[in-house]
Amino acid sequence: MSYVISLRCKECGKDYPIEPRTLCDDDFGPVEVAYDYDRMKGAVTRESIEAGPRSLWRYKDLLPIEGEPKAGFKSGLTPFIKADRLAAELGVKELYIKDDSANYPSYSYKDRVVSVAITKAVEFGFDTVGCASTGNLAHSVAAHAAMAGVKAFVMVPHDLEEGKIVGTQVFGPKMIKIQGNYDDVNRLCSQIADKYNWAIVNVNLRPFYTEGAKTHGYEIAEQLGWKLPQHTVVPVAGGTILPKIHKAYRELVKLGLVADEGGHMHAAQAQGCSPVVEAIQNGWDDFKPQKPNTIAKSIAIGNPADGPYVIDAVRSTGGSAAMASDAEIIDAVKLLARTEGVFTEPAGGTTLACAIKLIQQGKLPSNESICVSITGNGLKTIESLTGQFDEAPVIAAKMSEFDEAVTKIEAEGKTPAGAA
Amino acid sequence: MSYVISLRCKECGKDYPIEPRTLCDDDFGPVEVAYDYDRMKGAVTRESIEAGPRSLWRYKDLLPIEGEPKAGFKSGLTPFIKADRLAAELGVKELYIKDDSANYPSYSYKDRVVSVAITKAVEFGFDTVGCASTGNLAHSVAAHAAMAGVKAFVMVPHDLEEGKIVGTQVFGPKMIKIQGNYDDVNRLCSQIADKYNWAIVNVNLRPFYTEGAKTHGYEIAEQLGWKLPQHTVVPVAGGTILPKIHKAYRELVKLGLVADEGGHMHAAQAQGCSPVVEAIQNGWDDFKPQKPNTIAKSIAIGNPADGPYVIDAVRSTGGSAAMASDAEIIDAVKLLARTEGVFTEPAGGTTLACAIKLIQQGKLPSNESICVSITGNGLKTIESLTGQFDEAPVIAAKMSEFDEAVTKIEAEGKTPAGAA
Ligand SMILES: Cc1ncc(COP(=O)(O)O)c(C=O)c1O
Ligand SMILES: Cc1ncc(COP(=O)(O)O)c(C=O)c1O
Ligand SMILES: [Zn+2]
Ligand SMILES: [Zn+2]
Repeated sequence: MSYVISLRCKECGKDYPIEPRTLCDDDFGPVEVAYDYDRMKGAVTRESIEAGPRSLWRYKDLLPIEGEPKAGFKSGLTPFIKADRLAAELGVKELYIKDDSANYPSYSYKDRVVSVAITKAVEFGFDTVGCASTGNLAHSVAAHAAMAGVKAFVMVPHDLEEGKIVGTQVFGPKMIKIQGNYDDVNRLCSQIADKYNWAIVNVNLRPFYTEGAKTHGYEIAEQLGWKLPQHTVVPVAGGTILPKIHKAYRELVKLGLVADEGGHMHAAQAQGCSPVVEAIQNGWDDFKPQKPNTIAKSIAIGNPADGPYVIDAVRSTGGSAAMASDAEIIDAVKLLARTEGVFTEPAGGTTLACAIKLIQQGKLPSNESICVSITGNGLKTIESLTGQFDEAPVIAAKMSEFDEAVTKIEAEGKTPAGAA
Repeated sequence: MSYVISLRCKECGKDYPIEPRTLCDDDFGPVEVAYDYDRMKGAVTRESIEAGPRSLWRYKDLLPIEGEPKAGFKSGLTPFIKADRLAAELGVKELYIKDDSANYPSYSYKDRVVSVAITKAVEFGFDTVGCASTGNLAHSVAAHAAMAGVKAFVMVPHDLEEGKIVGTQVFGPKMIKIQGNYDDVNRLCSQIADKYNWAIVNVNLRPFYTEGAKTHGYEIAEQLGWKLPQHTVVPVAGGTILPKIHKAYRELVKLGLVADEGGHMHAAQAQGCSPVVEAIQNGWDDFKPQKPNTIAKSIAIGNPADGPYVIDAVRSTGGSAAMASDAEIIDAVKLLARTEGVFTEPAGGTTLACAIKLIQQGKLPSNESICVSITGNGLKTIESLTGQFDEAPVIAAKMSEFDEAVTKIEAEGKTPAGAA
């Protein structure tokens, strides 16, 4: 017996039953899951959550599933790191990394949304799942479908990174590459969802799928000791995760599980695909679609479905936004690895690079707590670092050559790996 | 106050103080950490372990550190999966995957040994750590050194996979590539350890380093509900992990934490580098070194330092051994991904491929519990799968082309991703 009431239109408030649906029939506003928070109060507590499984399903009462989970048994509850070495480099007091690059089984934040979507697909009786993806979602859908024994079709732009293609194909999904960018793939998938009886997780299961992203926010609050960080910096692609972290924070406040302090939301995008940041910086109510051109392919969405809700969440919390160049993104990837041992993909580099800018601008005050959401893993985008490091010296297996190499390295005062 | 007594020679039993040391002065036998199990008894319990941190440091009492851990705060306690879909395909009743491909921060079993070694390096006062590595160890040393703020030198064969090179360089270590194979690198590193005052984790800190591998075994037993699997299949490279899982099992029996049932150890190697398996299969007391030639580069060690102890552990537990061809390795990588959503590197494919052979030979009886140790992550060795999948069709973003592609895929009755 769940706490779900309905699918509710975010624009007009009209209620719909729990069914595969994306939009309101009346105004084409997106529908969102509504819950009975009054009934939750007192029943969903810190203790009830802490007694739950060591996965994102500890927050099951706050998720839109009816029975038991059908996927994602090891997903979520990713590391939350007090990043003291990075904080010292950046001159801030209290810095945290929420590290979804270690998510399971596919090493990105997408394991959260897919855990909920696949469970829901099974509940609805679908036998095939699918997605439109910039890579991480395809990877996650393929892995979860394999674990659950469900058929998968994944649709991706034709120019994805090799690690994401092979890392997805190995799970045995049916993959179709689409000429064009993510926005083209997504448009096609909306038609597919209408025509084929498939659960396209980010199209006809979108309201359920997106709720999974809330768990990133619940975990931050719980791992911080049941309070909100003053500032959370989050990457924006389709615009799912940022508003859902915000929703998670508000729900925790509403249920009395955290104090109503902090929770300012800050948006990060790559300069080569920054429609939402542009809108926030210019005070616009809506964004203008862009044609993406950035190394951060997984967040290269020029026409983000939930962009307006990112703008709302940032504004309503008094947050801010920044964009980073490809060079800044790469530098941030290296900085995070060198100081904290976390290797993220360009999407994570984008988030950290933007956080650095916002610190410099005083929008992230140096004496307030800051959490940076790292959402993807660098091992999937190795080619983004090609040529970024000096070639390591190649020597014969002789002590004399080794001594020479070490002398040279130490004299140069720099590493052969060319640490940034 | 730890339970460590001494470093004890495995050959003559002579005791040495706790210091950087690899071999006995008298007979060049390897030294191993000895503990006071009598004092542990009653103090180290299931409850004391379960009350510990959710990392490999919950087994701290059984590890050779004196103070608090200095590294690996999020390492270990990796997923343990009841692999029912894979079990069904293989026709066995009870199959488990111990999944160190999800280890933190560097996605292989090496995070275990390195967590202990870096802690010990700091305790001994070293300011530089190093290693001889087939890739995963370098990756792990570089990541942990970054987290701990320690200088790192990593020595690797010149022909490592791109993912392992870049994935290591990003953490900013000093990397030196050696012409030759791992055995050449290792020989050179023994000399380096003598000459430079560095903590070469798998040379002069080897006795401490190797103890970290026991945690893989403790976790299997704890995650199985405090009992030993009847059979454990483990890959062999330098020969560290297999005997250390065996040691872990014996320690748990000695302390009364598990019943003395099961614990048969089975060794897996690639056909192209199988000195230990050859010795076991032929009933030899020692192995003959080989020149490695296999796709499973991370376990391509032709002259394994601890090979004899693998032979002992397998024989004394009534276990067995198998070797797998490169083609069988790749098939096993695909099978594991397709059935369980776990993407491992060729080392893990080797272990599963060998387990399959041993099942077919009846050496792993189909009605007894079997655990397969998956020790590395497939995202680091993407090139090993190049050309393994049919090209996914590339279509324009049009419904007609999509329909055509789906019709073709369904008619062929096979996936464009070419699932095995
Ligand atoms: C690594 C990574 N980070 C962040 C995002 C942000 O996604 P969204 O704004 O659509 O939630 C994505 C989406 O694909 C991603 O792959
Ligand atoms: C992925 C992987 N598995 C297994 C091993 C086995 O190592 P060993 O026998 O040296 O403990 C290694 C060693 O490098 C490895 O990298
Ligand atoms: Zn409406
Ligand atoms: Zn001796």
